[in-house]
Amino acid sequence: MAIPTTRQVVHVVRYPDGMPQEADFALDQRALRAPGAGEVLLRTQWLSMDPYLRPLLAGRYAVPRPELGAVVPGGALSQVVHSNSGCLAAGDWVVGDTGWCDYATLAAESLRKVNPVQAPLSTALGVLGIPGLTAWAGLKTIARPQAGETVLVSTAAGAVGSVAGQLARLSGCRTVGIAGLPEKCAIAREAFGFDECVSHQSPTFVEDLRAACPEGIDVYFDNVGGPVLEAALSMLRTRARVVLCGMSAQYNQAQRPAGPNLGPVIGARAILQGLVVFDHLARFAEFTADVAPLVRDGRMHYRESISEGLASAPSAFIAMMAGRNLGKALVRVAS
Amino acid sequence: MAIPTTRQVVHVVRYPDGMPQEADFALDQRALRAPGAGEVLLRTQWLSMDPYLRPLLAGRYAVPRPELGAVVPGGALSQVVHSNSGCLAAGDWVVGDTGWCDYATLAAESLRKVNPVQAPLSTALGVLGIPGLTAWAGLKTIARPQAGETVLVSTAAGAVGSVAGQLARLSGCRTVGIAGLPEKCAIAREAFGFDECVSHQSPTFVEDLRAACPEGIDVYFDNVGGPVLEAALSMLRTRARVVLCGMSAQYNQAQRPAGPNLGPVIGARAILQGLVVFDHLARFAEFTADVAPLVRDGRMHYRESISEGLASAPSAFIAMMAGRNLGKALVRVAS
Repeated sequence: MAIPTTRQVVHVVRYPDGMPQEADFALDQRALRAPGAGEVLLRTQWLSMDPYLRPLLAGRYAVPRPELGAVVPGGALSQVVHSNSGCLAAGDWVVGDTGWCDYATLAAESLRKVNPVQAPLSTALGVLGIPGLTAWAGLKTIARPQAGETVLVSTAAGAVGSVAGQLARLSGCRTVGIAGLPEKCAIAREAFGFDECVSHQSPTFVEDLRAACPEGIDVYFDNVGGPVLEAALSMLRTRARVVLCGMSAQYNQAQRPAGPNLGPVIGARAILQGLVVFDHLARFAEFTADVAPLVRDGRMHYRESISEGLASAPSAFIAMMAGRNLGKALVRVAS
Repeated sequence: MAIPTTRQVVHVVRYPDGMPQEADFALDQRALRAPGAGEVLLRTQWLSMDPYLRPLLAGRYAVPRPELGAVVPGGALSQVVHSNSGCLAAGDWVVGDTGWCDYATLAAESLRKVNPVQAPLSTALGVLGIPGLTAWAGLKTIARPQAGETVLVSTAAGAVGSVAGQLARLSGCRTVGIAGLPEKCAIAREAFGFDECVSHQSPTFVEDLRAACPEGIDVYFDNVGGPVLEAALSMLRTRARVVLCGMSAQYNQAQRPAGPNLGPVIGARAILQGLVVFDHLARFAEFTADVAPLVRDGRMHYRESISEGLASAPSAFIAMMAGRNLGKALVRVAS
């Protein structure tokens, strides 16, 4: 195929104020840089929609926020169209931070090669990608769930939570999920095997959660922070472990709100530990060896929420931030 | 000496509402039970004033709160007057939870025998007692400070904080204290060797703390919670460890207040862990072997704030809760 010289991108028009709006983003045609030495030209197949983009756009993330006018950052599964690297060949599939675009030029060494036969390609952005690694690393290095323990997971139907719950269940734990929409609670129970799942949107959320965990919790995998975290901390059993992985409840807020009182953490002799998935990238092969067989033989399930075309990326991101996606949020860019 | 048949006690008249008042307590004469099999009769020498009494009186502690009219709970250093136990003899010195009284009858097995020649007796309630063990266990099992790290300690001039700071300094750390009164900050620096000490009563507390820890903190030993904990969490370095040991900032509050936002804990990949000293009683001999030589040879300092007579216990406790004591708060009961 001929190498294109222009590309479509979605760029940052303005930084979101509260919940992101479509007008915060715009589609644009730009010149496509030809790959230099060690670089490859990529065609985007799937864009990954991830909550961390929101704090990134607010300048509250581990990397600097993009300037106005820059391409919206984000991970994608792409195919190599042209390679100037000995490590990758045209036709290879890779995951990398291309941003929201249909074509990108990137250094080959910044990319992770994906085996296209181990599972459907899109899983490289979900259950076998960074979200799956996040869940796996949080359980492996912090939560260390033991058979018979009760493991509570927020965003239970989401890309991270669904993997955390399933891995804990496969370890012999009782799993209790928390999600927003009632449909998500049903998915958590029926697709991901949670023993129970309660909605944080219920007016009786705290009571529901206590009823679902009558003996308290040994592990809490937290992706949301806020009142859900506070409720979970009030139910810690002795020597409970809490994975602090995300704070999506506050991502749209201009100021960091107050947090939970930590008195119960003392009484429970509990451990709360922050998790940043990038610390665990070196364990990707180990993670894949653990989880890919589970996906292949049907013991690990996943769901996807797909929108069509690069232009739909802003609305897909907004829907995810509003909690309306019913699976790993993906944008199909090439068909 | 003849065995007395009555004793003086201080009892709980009413549960404190906010800051404790003298009228919450009253002195009383009561019958003294003769020791049965396995029991000893004790004469109180020193009463220990400890912050945990406040949440205990509010029913927010690990053990049930005392009924109205019951003797105020509390640890003391006492001498055995009469023994019906083969483990203890008249004249032995022991630490136990006698409550606020001049004589007590207790089971010998509930007592910890004190070596009266290793250090002054009163140290068995402070630097070589539960406060010292608390500091030692928090550093040993959670904080694990490494030479060159910055260790932040609240209640830096207090019974726990002063030991934590000195042990960290002896491990080669830079130590920064937090205290209330300016006199306490001076004591922390001059008596306990903190490199810096800032007052949380200063209107520029957060700025002062940042100036004292320009590169952030690797360890925070928290005895207070509240805004001081929040400030400390905003300064965590990567892989920092936080010992959650006490929440004295909220002990006088009827409702548990909101806590710190935990977003910075994620970014720092930090660990917060609750410490309850009772979990570590089995390591008392190891702790004593570590710390008693430091006290004897003058590398570990301590200060005491002594009030005279059992009747002064309520005012001594109130003064401590108000932060006015300039050392481990003790009441001398027998002279």
